[in-house]
Amino acid sequence: MKRFMAMSAAAVMTAAAMAAPADGSAGKSDGGRLSLLSPDKRLELTFQLSGFGEPVYTLSFDGQRVLDESRMGFDIRHEGGVNDIQPFMHDWTIAQSNTVLHPTQMHEGFRIDSVRRTSVDYTWEPVWGEEKEIRDRHNEMAVYLWQQTGADSTDGRTIVVRFRLFNDGLGFRYEFPRQKTLGYFIIGNELTEFNLHEDLTAFWIAGDYDANEFLYETSHLSEIAGLYPTFDRSGNSCICPMPVPGVQTPVMMKRDSGGLYVNIHEAALVNYSAMQLEVHDIGGGRTGFKAHLVPDALGNRGYIQTPQSTPWRTVIVTDNAPAVLESRLILNLNEPCAIEDTDWIRPQKFVGVWWQMFAPGQGTWSYTNEPNVQLGVTDYTRTAPNGTHAANTENVKRYIDFAAANNIQGVLVEGWNQGWEDWFGQFKDFVFDFTTPYPDFDVAELRDYAASKGVQLVMHHETSGSTLNYERYLDRAYQFMKDNNYSVVKSGYVGAIIPRGSHHYDQNTVNHFLHCIRRAADYEIMIDAHEPVRPTGLHRTWPNYLAAESGRGTEFESMGETGNPPEHTTIMPFTRFIGGPMDYTPGIFQTDMSYYDSTSVARIHTTLVKQLALYVVLYSPLQMVADLPENYERFQDAFTFIRNVPTDWDYTKVLEAEPGDYITTARKAKGEDKWYIGAITDENARTAVIDFSKLPLTKGKKYTATIYADGEDASWDENPQSYRITETTVTGSSLLEIPLARSGGVAIELR
Amino acid sequence: MKRFMAMSAAAVMTAAAMAAPADGSAGKSDGGRLSLLSPDKRLELTFQLSGFGEPVYTLSFDGQRVLDESRMGFDIRHEGGVNDIQPFMHDWTIAQSNTVLHPTQMHEGFRIDSVRRTSVDYTWEPVWGEEKEIRDRHNEMAVYLWQQTGADSTDGRTIVVRFRLFNDGLGFRYEFPRQKTLGYFIIGNELTEFNLHEDLTAFWIAGDYDANEFLYETSHLSEIAGLYPTFDRSGNSCICPMPVPGVQTPVMMKRDSGGLYVNIHEAALVNYSAMQLEVHDIGGGRTGFKAHLVPDALGNRGYIQTPQSTPWRTVIVTDNAPAVLESRLILNLNEPCAIEDTDWIRPQKFVGVWWQMFAPGQGTWSYTNEPNVQLGVTDYTRTAPNGTHAANTENVKRYIDFAAANNIQGVLVEGWNQGWEDWFGQFKDFVFDFTTPYPDFDVAELRDYAASKGVQLVMHHETSGSTLNYERYLDRAYQFMKDNNYSVVKSGYVGAIIPRGSHHYDQNTVNHFLHCIRRAADYEIMIDAHEPVRPTGLHRTWPNYLAAESGRGTEFESMGETGNPPEHTTIMPFTRFIGGPMDYTPGIFQTDMSYYDSTSVARIHTTLVKQLALYVVLYSPLQMVADLPENYERFQDAFTFIRNVPTDWDYTKVLEAEPGDYITTARKAKGEDKWYIGAITDENARTAVIDFSKLPLTKGKKYTATIYADGEDASWDENPQSYRITETTVTGSSLLEIPLARSGGVAIELR
Repeated sequence: MKRFMAMSAAAVMTAAAMAAPADGSAGKSDGGRLSLLSPDKRLELTFQLSGFGEPVYTLSFDGQRVLDESRMGFDIRHEGGVNDIQPFMHDWTIAQSNTVLHPTQMHEGFRIDSVRRTSVDYTWEPVWGEEKEIRDRHNEMAVYLWQQTGADSTDGRTIVVRFRLFNDGLGFRYEFPRQKTLGYFIIGNELTEFNLHEDLTAFWIAGDYDANEFLYETSHLSEIAGLYPTFDRSGNSCICPMPVPGVQTPVMMKRDSGGLYVNIHEAALVNYSAMQLEVHDIGGGRTGFKAHLVPDALGNRGYIQTPQSTPWRTVIVTDNAPAVLESRLILNLNEPCAIEDTDWIRPQKFVGVWWQMFAPGQGTWSYTNEPNVQLGVTDYTRTAPNGTHAANTENVKRYIDFAAANNIQGVLVEGWNQGWEDWFGQFKDFVFDFTTPYPDFDVAELRDYAASKGVQLVMHHETSGSTLNYERYLDRAYQFMKDNNYSVVKSGYVGAIIPRGSHHYDQNTVNHFLHCIRRAADYEIMIDAHEPVRPTGLHRTWPNYLAAESGRGTEFESMGETGNPPEHTTIMPFTRFIGGPMDYTPGIFQTDMSYYDSTSVARIHTTLVKQLALYVVLYSPLQMVADLPENYERFQDAFTFIRNVPTDWDYTKVLEAEPGDYITTARKAKGEDKWYIGAITDENARTAVIDFSKLPLTKGKKYTATIYADGEDASWDENPQSYRITETTVTGSSLLEIPLARSGGVAIELR
Repeated sequence: MKRFMAMSAAAVMTAAAMAAPADGSAGKSDGGRLSLLSPDKRLELTFQLSGFGEPVYTLSFDGQRVLDESRMGFDIRHEGGVNDIQPFMHDWTIAQSNTVLHPTQMHEGFRIDSVRRTSVDYTWEPVWGEEKEIRDRHNEMAVYLWQQTGADSTDGRTIVVRFRLFNDGLGFRYEFPRQKTLGYFIIGNELTEFNLHEDLTAFWIAGDYDANEFLYETSHLSEIAGLYPTFDRSGNSCICPMPVPGVQTPVMMKRDSGGLYVNIHEAALVNYSAMQLEVHDIGGGRTGFKAHLVPDALGNRGYIQTPQSTPWRTVIVTDNAPAVLESRLILNLNEPCAIEDTDWIRPQKFVGVWWQMFAPGQGTWSYTNEPNVQLGVTDYTRTAPNGTHAANTENVKRYIDFAAANNIQGVLVEGWNQGWEDWFGQFKDFVFDFTTPYPDFDVAELRDYAASKGVQLVMHHETSGSTLNYERYLDRAYQFMKDNNYSVVKSGYVGAIIPRGSHHYDQNTVNHFLHCIRRAADYEIMIDAHEPVRPTGLHRTWPNYLAAESGRGTEFESMGETGNPPEHTTIMPFTRFIGGPMDYTPGIFQTDMSYYDSTSVARIHTTLVKQLALYVVLYSPLQMVADLPENYERFQDAFTFIRNVPTDWDYTKVLEAEPGDYITTARKAKGEDKWYIGAITDENARTAVIDFSKLPLTKGKKYTATIYADGEDASWDENPQSYRITETTVTGSSLLEIPLARSGGVAIELR
């Protein structure tokens, strides 16, 4: 096991502007240019002011530019000092008519007031995760900028740009300190640029204020603008395309000739709108990115009261792909755990009344097919049951029995509560009350039955996008959960956000998601949020936030021919998972949907074994065992891997990876000398190379390896259920070469 | 006491279209015209379809037109049948960019499908109010309209226009029944017209989506458009003028030559946006009104799911002004009480730490004057107290003592909770958490102290307009109240609404206000809402909704020279109070603010005695005793009236009234043979005529009348505190003529 030396807190160094720091973090000084080096000195950040007093930064790796001169700052729609009251309200009225009274700027006319440098090296322990301990080692440079705003040279304000340079990348944020002359302001635009030096190949999804369950496009940066207008957003229930071409983060990039991997995202998105990225022409045929914050109903992009900081803008830079997956930069930029007692937070697997509603003809969320039923109006006991309602007491008991028998801690039930007949797409506020079950779902009986079997129930709260209605019922809903022994909630936000005019990813809704996480923590409830803003590492601070969806998961595989093509899960760890765990819902053994309905063209685009490997490759402390129990019963030997695989780890090593092509990941189970290895490939067959000498196995120990491999004749499209299970013995010097079928994989358990 | 004969429920009559009804409610039929008569046959409503199939109605009184042909209907922005899902979401995305994909109409091409007539006469007992019993006697006509919407003659939908004609006016609403072809739709505009036949004199305030604390303009209808642009909205913290000229309801109108009084408003505003009225030219130099619904952030004016009804549009029509004040039409159009056990609902008087913050230099809501303090960030125990914070434990005890000694049930405390330093005008979401007191306010000590004195505390919840934040904390806030023996909450909505883009009077915020009322009922909490949408009689259904502000109250008298001019309270009962009780906060004895600060030009625009009379003239079950205790101690004899006056009544008679001039009102105390009479006048002195023969006094009984009259030398501006208190004996045949000073009054107690 890898060991970091825990260093005594932070060695804090303060230096006046331009002075060379004593800690070795500064590079050479060049005129007004400030320099910051990473601990290993391979990354260099520079900062200076342009001739207009604009803040400008660059980033280099091994002496080569990654980001060319990139501007920073804000356009301000309104500002007011503390107690600057009436004009503010007046502005607001005018802002409603789309006129801006006092636009001001916070992007030029700056001077550098002071620079403070710090070096940090320590380790911390996450409540759960891919590692037992995480090392935070970085050099920091905080640049205090002064902007004169009045005729008098003393009229002005201070903002701070804080840079943290790690060996694997950069984080920086803006800070607006408490000060008399800067109380409240509204952000019109954040102007931060990421002007990439090379025309890298990007793995990207299109900018959108409400949806991100898209397939990834792979293209050069310079091709994004051309591809943007025809980007496929189908299958998403509520979309609002960014009106200018651009992408969502995390966006993964690589140099075609290798040796450079760059990932841009953000960390600790709190009380701010999500950052998307516009593409812009930076000359020489090159394309840069510029921050594009998701606007609210009034077109505003941020309401700030000092003291406040933006999220961290993150740029992971490495010379190999596995290092991107092993980066803990995002987590290190988040705040420490805010929950004192975390004993109640438990990583876990769960089954659920869920895939039944995606597999053709197997079940419905709704209880009746009568038209015009309506929550609070309809008496469901007087409607005709449709006979397909899956969340009935007997069926749920079957799932509870299955979970109890198979080392699965949770049972999710979707469709248990009244309102599903018109839950979707009606822009309706009061769809659910989160406490009223259908007549055939016996809350008390299931509570007692689950408890008798040692199984936890997972509550489902679909909001249909009405965060307003959900907040109205939130305390009652959480209390109902506690009263009935539910400790995890899967929340959902399918549909246009209500409050109307708000977006899934604006400041308002971002605040909603965090409000739920915090309030759930008060009730000791864990969260699996579907359709929220994509994660930014907040699970370090709020480890009850186990997982999110925020990306295209398995469900799309049931929705027609496209599904999730073979490369999809080889890209996701480089993009969606960079910010945090996803409830991807792996584990579908019956991959061909024509099994249920001969007319269905839908199928899972993997082999059965690749589904096993996903439990290792895709990290989440909350992993669904997504298929129907009866399908697992058909493949009991393969199911053994899912039964055994943990959801919490001491250590993780990515043995080989290339975005869009393949990933091989090894992980050590938490507190046990057991290892699990998963390898996946895209549409091309390949041979996974598993070099055990790269892993800190116990010296001299012989491990029994159970290998779940694709059958020789396996392939995702022609023979997905062909597999073979073998055993062998491995030591720290073993090397296995295992063939993977087209969109196949391998899963290995080492004991 | 007046007695109505209670008739057995409703005599329901159903008739096919055009058939003459058996109950005598129909007038003559003229071609395709339907007619409905009031029970006394003085009012006649007609309904017919225009040549375009537009629904058109008229209203006549004693054979003379009140409303000429007026159209009805809606413009629809979007519609979908039940489960018409994907197109709807797509439309929504487009609606965001202000493009409408499928505008349709619901205002022409109708045919009459059937007509159903009903007559009703019964009495009901309100939980509290101006009468012990209220008679609901009306004739009803429901017109079922069919609109063909497709090529096939069976493609179409039904809407119902339900008219109820009382002796004192008309109510009508639209009903959208449950039907397969009409599931969900969005209202672009409601097109209901009120085309007044005459150019009446109107008492009006300008249309505004967020504010109504305005002075009344008095002008002919034809002058409104010209006066609208310069209408004074100052002193309101958040305004959003209606973009076309028009007024808010209730709007009061009268014929200059007398004999006709008309009031337009609405009843039972539930899940719909408030109706304001645009003026429009109806030819011949005449001006009509057209409904103007308050839009939301997307410009939409109503989200409907069938079955749903609009609020009732109300037109009170009488030949004398007192009859307008005695009309119970609005209450009769509201639903019966929805609260089963109402024992906990108690009309009451209250004092409060409140006027201290308006009287110059007497106190502040805030605890500290330090800059940039912020809820959740600042530790208030470490800030420097400003020494002016009024809501401190000792001061509140003083109010509790005063209340206990003077038959006053409640003590309000404003400024008790953290956050007031920047509560106002910052468009800030998280201003208050509603449960965290300032360091100098001891919740437990005051809870116990108040209980020991038999006094109830009134909680204050200022939201700063963030209904979003309030709902987040609502359950916790109400539970905190129950835990600390608060049974009434005064809520406040000063500032722009958050969710941003929403308005105080749109459907979203209307729903918020009712949500609070319903949720408070669950906690057995009574509500006094400030800055909500103006009442529409919902206190019949939800009698825990004691009072609202929603109009220009006493507080404006402290804010400069204009204040509330003498006529103000002679108009308010005809306008603001038509919909329900107002927390006007009467009872200011120290009327001249220069008493506190010699530079102040502010003063109450009444005599002291008129302040007493307001307790009778302005009905509310929750009456503030608004002045400082020390001022009442200076006028103990006059204060006796306030100490004695009740807030709940068996019977009310308006003896004389003219909007803008004077009002004399007599009321009998609930369950006691005590009468209270209040008379007020405008800027002109006059003699109030109190004819006891008009009141159902106990026959032969001699009552002792204590008369609180203006002093001979009294006037609002020169000698407001001059009064004399006399006693006399009156019987059912007495007649008193009592002189009122300029903006003076008289208050009489009969035992």
